[in-house]
Amino acid sequence: MENFNWYNPTRIIFGRGCHREAGIWTAKYSRKVLLVYGGKSLKATGTYDAVTKSLKDAGVAYTELSGIRPNPRLNPVYEGIEICKREAIDFVLAVGGGSVIDTGKAIALGVCYNGDVWDLYGKGVKPEKKLHMGVVLTIPAAGSESSDGSVITREEGLLKRSCCSDLLFPDFAILNPELCYTLPKEQIRAGGADILAHVMERYFAPNSNNDLTDRLCEGAMKTLMKNLPVVLEDVTNYDAWAEVMWTGNVAHSGLLGKGRMDDWASHNIEHELSALYDIPHGTGLAVIFPAWMKYVYREHSWRFVQFGQRVFGIKTEGKTTDEICWEAIEDLEDFYHRIGLPASLRELGIDESNFDRMAAKATGNDGYTLGSFKKLTKNDVKEIYGLAL
Amino acid sequence: MENFNWYNPTRIIFGRGCHREAGIWTAKYSRKVLLVYGGKSLKATGTYDAVTKSLKDAGVAYTELSGIRPNPRLNPVYEGIEICKREAIDFVLAVGGGSVIDTGKAIALGVCYNGDVWDLYGKGVKPEKKLHMGVVLTIPAAGSESSDGSVITREEGLLKRSCCSDLLFPDFAILNPELCYTLPKEQIRAGGADILAHVMERYFAPNSNNDLTDRLCEGAMKTLMKNLPVVLEDVTNYDAWAEVMWTGNVAHSGLLGKGRMDDWASHNIEHELSALYDIPHGTGLAVIFPAWMKYVYREHSWRFVQFGQRVFGIKTEGKTTDEICWEAIEDLEDFYHRIGLPASLRELGIDESNFDRMAAKATGNDGYTLGSFKKLTKNDVKEIYGLAL
Repeated sequence: MENFNWYNPTRIIFGRGCHREAGIWTAKYSRKVLLVYGGKSLKATGTYDAVTKSLKDAGVAYTELSGIRPNPRLNPVYEGIEICKREAIDFVLAVGGGSVIDTGKAIALGVCYNGDVWDLYGKGVKPEKKLHMGVVLTIPAAGSESSDGSVITREEGLLKRSCCSDLLFPDFAILNPELCYTLPKEQIRAGGADILAHVMERYFAPNSNNDLTDRLCEGAMKTLMKNLPVVLEDVTNYDAWAEVMWTGNVAHSGLLGKGRMDDWASHNIEHELSALYDIPHGTGLAVIFPAWMKYVYREHSWRFVQFGQRVFGIKTEGKTTDEICWEAIEDLEDFYHRIGLPASLRELGIDESNFDRMAAKATGNDGYTLGSFKKLTKNDVKEIYGLAL
Repeated sequence: MENFNWYNPTRIIFGRGCHREAGIWTAKYSRKVLLVYGGKSLKATGTYDAVTKSLKDAGVAYTELSGIRPNPRLNPVYEGIEICKREAIDFVLAVGGGSVIDTGKAIALGVCYNGDVWDLYGKGVKPEKKLHMGVVLTIPAAGSESSDGSVITREEGLLKRSCCSDLLFPDFAILNPELCYTLPKEQIRAGGADILAHVMERYFAPNSNNDLTDRLCEGAMKTLMKNLPVVLEDVTNYDAWAEVMWTGNVAHSGLLGKGRMDDWASHNIEHELSALYDIPHGTGLAVIFPAWMKYVYREHSWRFVQFGQRVFGIKTEGKTTDEICWEAIEDLEDFYHRIGLPASLRELGIDESNFDRMAAKATGNDGYTLGSFKKLTKNDVKEIYGLAL
C-alpha cells in the first residue's frame, strides 16, 4: 500500500426532506449569500421555493446567479465573483448538480484570489483561501458536493481545466434523494455513468496489495449497477435513489482511491469530447471507458480478472486470461447498453475529424502522458478515440 | 435508508515513516503541547524518540503525561487537565492506542469544561469546546484516532462510560503500519477482534435497504479476516499491517453505519466485563459477540444469512435458515479460535458470580434496554453472559 493522506471535512446531511434545512445550515456561516443555480427545472420542481423559503425562515438574505449550464463556463464565474465583491457576500450556496457546484466553488475561490481566477485552473496556481460554501445536490453524478475539485471550461479555445485543493471541500452538502424523482432519464443515465467512472478511475490502479480499497470499490460498483436500473424503471423509488445518491457521494469523496495511484485517463480523454461537442460528461465516459479498457487491459490483466469475478461474478474455469478480461469489458458494455447509454461516438454524431486535435489537447501538446494504469501518449489517446468510434 | 448526517474532519496521514511528521503537523496548531502516552513499550520501540525528536525539530515544547493503562481511568485525566491549566497548554498529542487517545480526548475536553469532566461521561452533559489534538496511533484496534467517542472508567464503582460529540474527532491522526511490528500477539488478537466488532455492531442492523453500507461492511470484514492471520504469522508484513490498520480506522470512522441503526449491545455487555475483570476489551468482545448472535439471530435472520453468504461464502442450497445462521456464527467462532482468541468466559477465568451485577450495570439498573437488532433487557443480558460461559 502506498502512503496517503485522507481528509474530507464536508458534512453530509442526507435524507428525506433535508433540503428544507438549507437555511439552518447556511445561517451557521452567513446571513448574506450568493445563491447559484441552473434554471427552470429547479423552479418547476419546487426545490427553488423550498430552499429560498428555508433561507428566509433562517434570516438569510440572498442574491441569485442563475442560468448555469452543463460543462460550466468561465464567464458566469466572473459574474458571480463580481456580485460577491460588490455586495460584500461571504458565502456561496450552490443548488444543483456538478456544474452548479463547480461554478460555486470557482466563485468562492475567485472572490478571495487577487488576480484572474482562471490562474487557479489553467495555470496551476495554488489557491490559498476560499469563501465558505454549502451545497444542495439535485443530481447525483459529479460527486463535487464533497470533493476537492472543480472543473471549469474557458470559452476561449474551449479549454476544460480543473482546480484541486483541500480548500474546495464544501462546508456542508445536503443530499435528499427525493429531489431526484423529477430528473430526465438522459440525466440519470449520464449521472450513473459518471458515478461508475469515478469508482473505476480509482479501481483500475496498477497497484496490488490494496485489499480494503478494492473491496470498497467493488461494493460501490455493485450497489450502483443494482440500483441505477431500478430508478430508471421506477423514478420515485426512494430506497434505490438513496443508494445511487449515497454511492455517488462515496465514489468521489476520495476514500475509494486510498493507498494507490488513481488513473483518470478516461476522464481527461472524455473532457476534450464534452468541451468540444457539449455532450454530457457521463455519456461520453460510457463510450470512452470500454475503449480505454480494451486498449490498456493487458498492462495489469489480473485486475480485470478480479473486476470480472467480483463485480460480475464471472466464472473463470477453463478460460484464458484474455477471455476473462474481454468478458468483463463486455459485461460492462452490456450494463451501459441495458440502461440506454450509447455504445459509440458515432451514435453521438461524432466522427474522427477532431481526434488529433483532442488527443493533443488532452496530453497538453508536449508529450505529457495521461493515466497510471498505462501511461498514455498523444498517439495512445488517438487510438482510444478510434476504438470508441 | 434512514436519514443521517456524516461528518468526519480528522485528517489521516498514513504510511511508512509518517510518525516522524508528528512535529510538523502539531506545529500547525501549537508550540506547547501535552504529550500523553502509555509506558515502557513506546520507549523500547524507538517511537518515543522519533516523535519527541520530530517535536523538537519543529520547535514544539512538550510536557509528558505517561503511564496510561488499558481500560483508561479517570484520575490520569484529572492529572492531565491540571497540567494543561497550570502550564497554559492548548494542544494534546496522544501517542498510543485507544486508551491513550481516549485519555487525551478527555483531557482536551476537561481543560475547556467549567466543572468536573466526568459530567460529560457519566451524566450526559454535552461538551461545547475542546482543545485541538493530534494522534500517533501505535495499536490498530479502538478506532478512536478518528472517531467521535471516548470511553473512560471511573475508579469509584468501576463505572465505564463514554462521551460522544463531533468535538471529539482529533484534528489529525498519524498511522504508520511499521509501528505495529513490535506488538505482542495478545494485543494483535484483541485489537483485531475490536476492529471486527466495530464493523459488526454496525452491520447487524435491523434495517434492510442498505446496499452500499452492507457492501462496505462486508468488504471491511473480509479484509480484516484475510490480513489479521497474516500479521500474526509474519509480524513485519507491511502490506498486511497496512490493511489491518486502515480497516481499523474505516471500521470506526462512522461511515460503515450510515443510513441505519447501529447496535452496540455487545460493546456495552463487554464493557462491564473489562471494567470489572480488566481483560482486554477486544478479547471480551470475541467471547461476547457469538453469544449475542446465538441469542438474537432469529429477530432478523435474513441478515445472518447474508453475512454467511457474502463474508464466509456459505452455500445455502438445501439448508434451513436456522442451519445457515448457525453455520455463519460457527464460521465466526472458527475465525476467532484460529487466531488464538478464547472461546468462553471460563477460559478467561470468569464465572457466573457477577452476571447479575454486570447485567444490571449494563442496562442502567432501571429497565433501560441495549441494542437495536433486538432490544435487550437486564434478563436478556444475563442470558447472553450465560451463553458466553
